[in-house]
Amino acid sequence: MASEQKQGRSPELRKDWVTNRWVIFSPARAKRPSDFKYKSPATTTSTTTADQIQDGCPFCLGHEHLCAPEIFRVPTSSDPDWKIRVIQNLYPALDRTLNDPIAVAPNPNLNGVEVLGGFGFHDVVIETPFHSLQLSDLSSQEISEVFKNHGASAGASLSHSHSQIIGLPIVPPNVSARVDSMKQYFNEMGKCSVCEIQVKELLIDESTHFISIVPFAATFPFEIWIIPRDHSSHFHQLDEAEAVDLGGLLKLMLRKMASQLNNPPFNFMIHTSPLRVTDPQLPYIHWFLQIIPQLTVVAGFEMATGCYINPVFPEDAAKVLREVPNPE
Amino acid sequence: MASEQKQGRSPELRKDWVTNRWVIFSPARAKRPSDFKYKSPATTTSTTTADQIQDGCPFCLGHEHLCAPEIFRVPTSSDPDWKIRVIQNLYPALDRTLNDPIAVAPNPNLNGVEVLGGFGFHDVVIETPFHSLQLSDLSSQEISEVFKNHGASAGASLSHSHSQIIGLPIVPPNVSARVDSMKQYFNEMGKCSVCEIQVKELLIDESTHFISIVPFAATFPFEIWIIPRDHSSHFHQLDEAEAVDLGGLLKLMLRKMASQLNNPPFNFMIHTSPLRVTDPQLPYIHWFLQIIPQLTVVAGFEMATGCYINPVFPEDAAKVLREVPNPE
Repeated sequence: MASEQKQGRSPELRKDWVTNRWVIFSPARAKRPSDFKYKSPATTTSTTTADQIQDGCPFCLGHEHLCAPEIFRVPTSSDPDWKIRVIQNLYPALDRTLNDPIAVAPNPNLNGVEVLGGFGFHDVVIETPFHSLQLSDLSSQEISEVFKNHGASAGASLSHSHSQIIGLPIVPPNVSARVDSMKQYFNEMGKCSVCEIQVKELLIDESTHFISIVPFAATFPFEIWIIPRDHSSHFHQLDEAEAVDLGGLLKLMLRKMASQLNNPPFNFMIHTSPLRVTDPQLPYIHWFLQIIPQLTVVAGFEMATGCYINPVFPEDAAKVLREVPNPE
Repeated sequence: MASEQKQGRSPELRKDWVTNRWVIFSPARAKRPSDFKYKSPATTTSTTTADQIQDGCPFCLGHEHLCAPEIFRVPTSSDPDWKIRVIQNLYPALDRTLNDPIAVAPNPNLNGVEVLGGFGFHDVVIETPFHSLQLSDLSSQEISEVFKNHGASAGASLSHSHSQIIGLPIVPPNVSARVDSMKQYFNEMGKCSVCEIQVKELLIDESTHFISIVPFAATFPFEIWIIPRDHSSHFHQLDEAEAVDLGGLLKLMLRKMASQLNNPPFNFMIHTSPLRVTDPQLPYIHWFLQIIPQLTVVAGFEMATGCYINPVFPEDAAKVLREVPNPE
């Protein structure tokens, strides 16, 4: 695929000076502009299947030849009986074969000001060899294996359980905004903003090393944050015991969400510190995992303003999730 | 509805200190948190109907009694044969009966820092009395009447053609970011960033007072901006001739988009200057209308990072839209 992409144009990052936003232009993700037509929503074909292996699914055990190159697998690199595989994305948004992030001379006919070559990584974590399993069906130990092997945002285009890792040549705007805001709170209040979130009325559940809450100003209805109890900046410093504990609490949250909200699709993202922060920044950066059930549609108002409307008060959502009996 | 809302809780704006984001909590938009379940996507019921008036649609001519209170109608307030109606939203995100935006004492049990009462406006513009008409079916003159009567973002939950106007007690984050970014460009380059956008390779069409382009770093594939040719900060200063001209160019863009992209759903938003800017700010604030066809899904990556992936280079999208023959 990398070679196919080479024949066409390379990906590019461009900054819009009006919205102050970087956008990734990724020709590998579309054939031709004219092919880019709207498809009416069809009846859902993702019928619940009991089949462990599904015909044509590239992520199923035994179908490894249908995938882009593998980066590694767990337990060991040559084990045919794998539990997790990390592979390259077949349609990568960014190109790992380009050089370091470099400024590209903008096309003078386009009046662009800031352009970067689209260097970066776009990998996929296949969380289980079996098509019929969801992340919440795995054991805490198995979920912890997934965590030990990646650290970025979740998404879905194939129904087989997987997550995505994207490595960018820039610090994305939400990450800088979060770090700046945490810093401002720390300077004004003398405390870490995430440590302060741990209040009883917003609490859903807790485990040895983590708590789960609905945040005070949740952007989305029934949004859940899983937060390390003790101050910690870097997700990748998670040890084995903490990973299993996190796997257990995530599993519980996914099951409660499924049982109370009729099994909605969801995204989860790990918000960790940028790697190159300095020691004085650590006291105010606290990593957490965010789960967003897809219950509302982002419409014109949200796109235009960046302001969100949430119909459910967080303390009410926390109560609903707290009071459901453990579905196990 | 306002009275029903009064019996429950008032809406509230809360600021999240981790993401630095204001969120509107709007209890009028949900019955109970436990009712808030995911509904599987059903087969689309919005069959194209030739009926001018549809049973049960509150926006159709003669069904005015099904709506929340009217604010005004065009041509005149008592004309039963109206062309446009502006009404209150039946499920308003904000409450116009509250006092001025005031800080609410946060519940100490929730550890919230910044909370505002949910004062504001949430109105609906019914763009035509007839269910079977889309905005692009109206004449340029009729579209200009819609413009003369509102000035905010578009959305859709009912199929009858309408737009929404939301008046907020805060300047939303995307608006401040845009104004700040336009200012920075102006200070560095000595020119208005939007005036500078008008380059040939990104151009789609032009009219007497406006041009339509795909912006250099478009966030979404086939995103279109309609921009006043001459520098202008405030949308509401549009005169009659300019409004008709804008109506004609918008109609053309919607028809080209429908013919090239298989009639996708879309949002359009008017990005105008905040009202209370000062004279020295006017040289760098330039209003424009943004059209976004819904061709891609916003997933975990975009939610987590605020960074967007666009598979179509803007100059390619502009060429596709430029070269379609005028569908009229």
